[in-house]
Amino acid sequence: MVGGGEGAFIGGVHRIAARLDDRFDLVAGALASEPARAHRSAAALGLDPTRSYADFEVMAREEAARPDGIEVVSIVTPNHMHAPVATAFLRAGIHVICDKPMTRTLEEAEALAEEVRASNALFVLTHNYTGYAMVRQARAMVGAGQLGRIRVVQVEYPQDWLTEPVGTDGAKQAVWRTDPTRAGAAGSLGDIGTHAMNLASFVSGLEPREICAELTSFVPGRAVDDDVQMLIRYASGAKGMLWASQVSPGNENGLKLRIYGESAGLEWLQTAPDSLRVSPFGEPPYLLSRGGPGLTPEVAEMGRVPAGHPEGFLEAFGNLYSATADAILAHERGEPRPLGLLPGVADGLAGMRFISAALRSSQAGGVWTAL
Amino acid sequence: MVGGGEGAFIGGVHRIAARLDDRFDLVAGALASEPARAHRSAAALGLDPTRSYADFEVMAREEAARPDGIEVVSIVTPNHMHAPVATAFLRAGIHVICDKPMTRTLEEAEALAEEVRASNALFVLTHNYTGYAMVRQARAMVGAGQLGRIRVVQVEYPQDWLTEPVGTDGAKQAVWRTDPTRAGAAGSLGDIGTHAMNLASFVSGLEPREICAELTSFVPGRAVDDDVQMLIRYASGAKGMLWASQVSPGNENGLKLRIYGESAGLEWLQTAPDSLRVSPFGEPPYLLSRGGPGLTPEVAEMGRVPAGHPEGFLEAFGNLYSATADAILAHERGEPRPLGLLPGVADGLAGMRFISAALRSSQAGGVWTAL
Amino acid sequence: MVGGGEGAFIGGVHRIAARLDDRFDLVAGALASEPARAHRSAAALGLDPTRSYADFEVMAREEAARPDGIEVVSIVTPNHMHAPVATAFLRAGIHVICDKPMTRTLEEAEALAEEVRASNALFVLTHNYTGYAMVRQARAMVGAGQLGRIRVVQVEYPQDWLTEPVGTDGAKQAVWRTDPTRAGAAGSLGDIGTHAMNLASFVSGLEPREICAELTSFVPGRAVDDDVQMLIRYASGAKGMLWASQVSPGNENGLKLRIYGESAGLEWLQTAPDSLRVSPFGEPPYLLSRGGPGLTPEVAEMGRVPAGHPEGFLEAFGNLYSATADAILAHERGEPRPLGLLPGVADGLAGMRFISAALRSSQAGGVWTAL
Amino acid sequence: MVGGGEGAFIGGVHRIAARLDDRFDLVAGALASEPARAHRSAAALGLDPTRSYADFEVMAREEAARPDGIEVVSIVTPNHMHAPVATAFLRAGIHVICDKPMTRTLEEAEALAEEVRASNALFVLTHNYTGYAMVRQARAMVGAGQLGRIRVVQVEYPQDWLTEPVGTDGAKQAVWRTDPTRAGAAGSLGDIGTHAMNLASFVSGLEPREICAELTSFVPGRAVDDDVQMLIRYASGAKGMLWASQVSPGNENGLKLRIYGESAGLEWLQTAPDSLRVSPFGEPPYLLSRGGPGLTPEVAEMGRVPAGHPEGFLEAFGNLYSATADAILAHERGEPRPLGLLPGVADGLAGMRFISAALRSSQAGGVWTAL
Repeated sequence: MVGGGEGAFIGGVHRIAARLDDRFDLVAGALASEPARAHRSAAALGLDPTRSYADFEVMAREEAARPDGIEVVSIVTPNHMHAPVATAFLRAGIHVICDKPMTRTLEEAEALAEEVRASNALFVLTHNYTGYAMVRQARAMVGAGQLGRIRVVQVEYPQDWLTEPVGTDGAKQAVWRTDPTRAGAAGSLGDIGTHAMNLASFVSGLEPREICAELTSFVPGRAVDDDVQMLIRYASGAKGMLWASQVSPGNENGLKLRIYGESAGLEWLQTAPDSLRVSPFGEPPYLLSRGGPGLTPEVAEMGRVPAGHPEGFLEAFGNLYSATADAILAHERGEPRPLGLLPGVADGLAGMRFISAALRSSQAGGVWTAL
Repeated sequence: MVGGGEGAFIGGVHRIAARLDDRFDLVAGALASEPARAHRSAAALGLDPTRSYADFEVMAREEAARPDGIEVVSIVTPNHMHAPVATAFLRAGIHVICDKPMTRTLEEAEALAEEVRASNALFVLTHNYTGYAMVRQARAMVGAGQLGRIRVVQVEYPQDWLTEPVGTDGAKQAVWRTDPTRAGAAGSLGDIGTHAMNLASFVSGLEPREICAELTSFVPGRAVDDDVQMLIRYASGAKGMLWASQVSPGNENGLKLRIYGESAGLEWLQTAPDSLRVSPFGEPPYLLSRGGPGLTPEVAEMGRVPAGHPEGFLEAFGNLYSATADAILAHERGEPRPLGLLPGVADGLAGMRFISAALRSSQAGGVWTAL
Repeated sequence: MVGGGEGAFIGGVHRIAARLDDRFDLVAGALASEPARAHRSAAALGLDPTRSYADFEVMAREEAARPDGIEVVSIVTPNHMHAPVATAFLRAGIHVICDKPMTRTLEEAEALAEEVRASNALFVLTHNYTGYAMVRQARAMVGAGQLGRIRVVQVEYPQDWLTEPVGTDGAKQAVWRTDPTRAGAAGSLGDIGTHAMNLASFVSGLEPREICAELTSFVPGRAVDDDVQMLIRYASGAKGMLWASQVSPGNENGLKLRIYGESAGLEWLQTAPDSLRVSPFGEPPYLLSRGGPGLTPEVAEMGRVPAGHPEGFLEAFGNLYSATADAILAHERGEPRPLGLLPGVADGLAGMRFISAALRSSQAGGVWTAL
Repeated sequence: MVGGGEGAFIGGVHRIAARLDDRFDLVAGALASEPARAHRSAAALGLDPTRSYADFEVMAREEAARPDGIEVVSIVTPNHMHAPVATAFLRAGIHVICDKPMTRTLEEAEALAEEVRASNALFVLTHNYTGYAMVRQARAMVGAGQLGRIRVVQVEYPQDWLTEPVGTDGAKQAVWRTDPTRAGAAGSLGDIGTHAMNLASFVSGLEPREICAELTSFVPGRAVDDDVQMLIRYASGAKGMLWASQVSPGNENGLKLRIYGESAGLEWLQTAPDSLRVSPFGEPPYLLSRGGPGLTPEVAEMGRVPAGHPEGFLEAFGNLYSATADAILAHERGEPRPLGLLPGVADGLAGMRFISAALRSSQAGGVWTAL
């Protein structure tokens, strides 16, 4: 693991997700860029001190050289470090699991895509919401044509945690996530807007072609957007809206997706993730649940506990990790397309194109901009 | 009543709304433009045959001349007839309750606004959602500053009843509502988009200044939009989105409003209209209910049955009718501003400006357009 | 109308319900037992003073003698007056709409049942929750065998308005409803427990055979129960629970019914009355809505506004009134069983037997007691 | 771990729960009573073959003798093995985490309680629903008097998975859970009824004194109850109902608790476990959420991901495991009452007394029976 030392949030999530299904052991890390903090964090996690690194490049080199070196690295640093770290490990032949957004800039993303292409190692991007069973079910139903041709795609991701200014005593992540030098020029756009866009694309299978974006920084002194409103034209002719906000009191992590086609609609909400509402036109809407009746065979097998015992965010994240373990084994067996439905570099690149286009659209005063 | 004969929908709603609190008697009507149908409809409603008219101009003239003539007329025709009918009655000195959108075109709306200004009669526009108790509560809370300065206004009104083409055997209202010569150039925009915009303005107290609209006719052969997606810049600096759709399967009449300010948010949904969710930043969200604790004195008095016994669409509509009765009495007493919170000609004009700007924005390819 | 003068609650509800579909005119009343209050109330409602009575027996006699006398009387007095008033009008040949519980005691109920049998007039008991469209749908589905043999019937009706003692300055209805000389020995049992039991029987079609009841008066000094908990054995072998409470903070009028059979379950909740959840075993649960797809033909016709525009308590009450108008016409045509699904004297008698058995069960320390 | 081999359900849950916070390593097991299956299961979990046992008594003896022997054992066998296995490990001085119900019979439970008293080892019973953050919050609020004196306690746990007969090809757990020789005389009563009762007691702090139970086996040929309905008199004077069912189609794991006191009510539902509804009398109800505002300091620290990212069943289970790790450390430091809020032998004994009383009440035809 690179990043994820003391005080970090997402590193701990990745560690639990990796542990959940007992498919990974955490054995090495460059958990912080400051050596003392890195080693203190490593000790707290019980790492062998000889495998606690202060420098990710050293870690990549030395782990690659060990017979018992790591097979895969998780990158959970602030955004601006994703590209250099990923590059180092890919070049060392070590598989990469990278948090999103993939990089800080589109240029970095394109360069990283080249690195992935050139490497034999796998690259997985943790668009973790794609790991929910009912998101997979939604995707399968759209793919099977159960909604008919898609017309409307509505996605939103409201939060409220940045409603007020983040002081210098603010939470570590609030500080870096609102700092363009570390998070990139996009604030809520990069942090949660990309999740929303990725989810809409993952489930609908549609490619956004043009967007018209309104980015706003409502909190005085904030250097990045904290609210994103957007119209989207998909290549297929479908139309969509996207809203991401970090200043909407009463919303915790309200990621919600609604898709409407010629013959049916569906609705999914992260705060009740084990449920999927499906509404065929002219018939009563029905409710699918994880582990319940009416699922595709692949989705029916997802989950660790029976229907009605809620699974949540960590389980969805764990699904990506377990799928990554499967992908590594498939890769070792030489199977083509070992990643399956796992998000990868193409999704990361799409995300950075999306961010870039949104920034350009907004800066131009809200004009339709091609991705 | 003008319009509302056999087979019509909204006429019956107006009649129930008028009857609900026993403040009105229906005594005359030009219920249809075709004489036989008009008289058949009048007979079915038990009208005195001498007060069943086939021509609204005759009705206006004759009723104005009778000592027991009507005090107020309800106009429930297709949109293109609103302006001429309203004009006739206003000139006759008879108060007007008019369904929305106010007219078919902006030009008609401006002319009608002149007529209202010139008349001593009152003009009420039935933006009926403003009649819900919890909508009034939401407005009062925003007005009292309980949300702080407003940042984000999200409103939507999805339906599904026009998901498929309306045949020649279609419901009467589906036919005229998708016919530009009778409904105007706007389809879902005029039918429900105006309701959504009006609701957002009524509660937020904000004035939309510019919009960027994407109107789509998804159903082949349909002459008007059946889906509207829109970004809105309010004059205050607040930002908003608006979605209205008649082709989204699984949505019946899902009008929903969410408003977020610097210090709190609120959420209201027409399908559960007796409830209002309020979320002060940094505190647990709470639920207000019609008739329950925590309401303003004016709202606490609204409603005919105790909290927990649901009221609905007809009761909200009835609230507008009862307020109109109050307004007429206040007007007779010579009180200034007798309409109070009732929507009137200014709202109708704002609605037509909104429609006009949305049509222009969309026709220009989705450019920001001033209202 | 008898009862329903100034300060009363349910009288106003009956008047709106009667007016809603324009099938009744209120022309006479004995609105209060105190003459001045009776006439003042009558004047406020615009009754002809010659038809405002201070004595219900005079009213029955005089109205029966008039050529334009009332066809039907609504009895909305406190419970102890139901039997004498109903008897007077039945003997005068005037149809009766009576609020529930039917009488104050079982003995009165049995006597009244005799009066109904002996009279040519109709007797309707306003178990108003049976008027909801989705309750009708639920009944139809059970009756058609869609749930299979019924196993479990869970019904509850929690309120909170009597959580604290009602002072002498309390609301008029709170005072009489907690006074055994006027409401009967049952408090919450008679007021809402009977509604719950009636609803369960109406939908399930099952006959309760034995009950084991725990009645509690939680509020110090209260002379009647304010909480009822009960186990029910149905004659068919089905088992059920019933809970009614007026001291459960956070519940307004939470009437809820759940029925489970060998092959499906269903759930209905008064606070969202336009929706019915149906759950066939082994299939995804689905949601029926008033006006939506999948209803029986009779239920599909119910409602005054389209699906998604909520109807509520008053509309359900109005459905009973309109059905009563139909029943009177059917009766005049000499049709057998003109009441159809309307609750009548048999339901009232069943309700009083239920109350009586519950009181006996509880007084005996909670023993199983036959109805 | 004892039990939890191939095909078992709850063993896997315990393993994930133990792993979630990285406080335990699974190093030994007697995973099945049949040696080949035990070793196959152990190999699948990567256990050292020398620590895979076919006999739990051998395991207890040998692990106790090892310097690196296990500190704690998880017992996840069918119910009839809980007592002998727990006894063996307690006598060997090894801490025990035991699934519930604690034993098959009350006599076994009393004997086991003696064993716990005589042992220096800790005994934890996995009433896992007590591990939910919002359940802890509810308990804290009741304990702090925020509801006032408790009046009514309503708890229910409906499921549907045993709606139809379980064939010989049924799921392993369905088979043993409906077999009285392995599960005990109680079916749904022992399986989920005890969870419901435990939850009600844990949150309310009240002691049930008498119960009146109706146990039913609806499915032909089933030897144990599949539906439990019960009235409960608490020692404090509070009254309650309990419903547990495994034959109610449309319910997955609908554990729900509602508690009403003199001054407030609260409501919690396992299918939305991160939320708690609190309703002070005379004030608007509000919603607490895990990680959100308004929690006690202890509860505010619970959870691994921010508010709005759902946690579920496994996380609650993991909370018990992590608290057990804390308890073991506290025990080693010689602290009194190291278990804190963890359920232990007293809860297990209370559960068995509850089962015993319910069986006696029901067999006697539904009479009030002291616990």
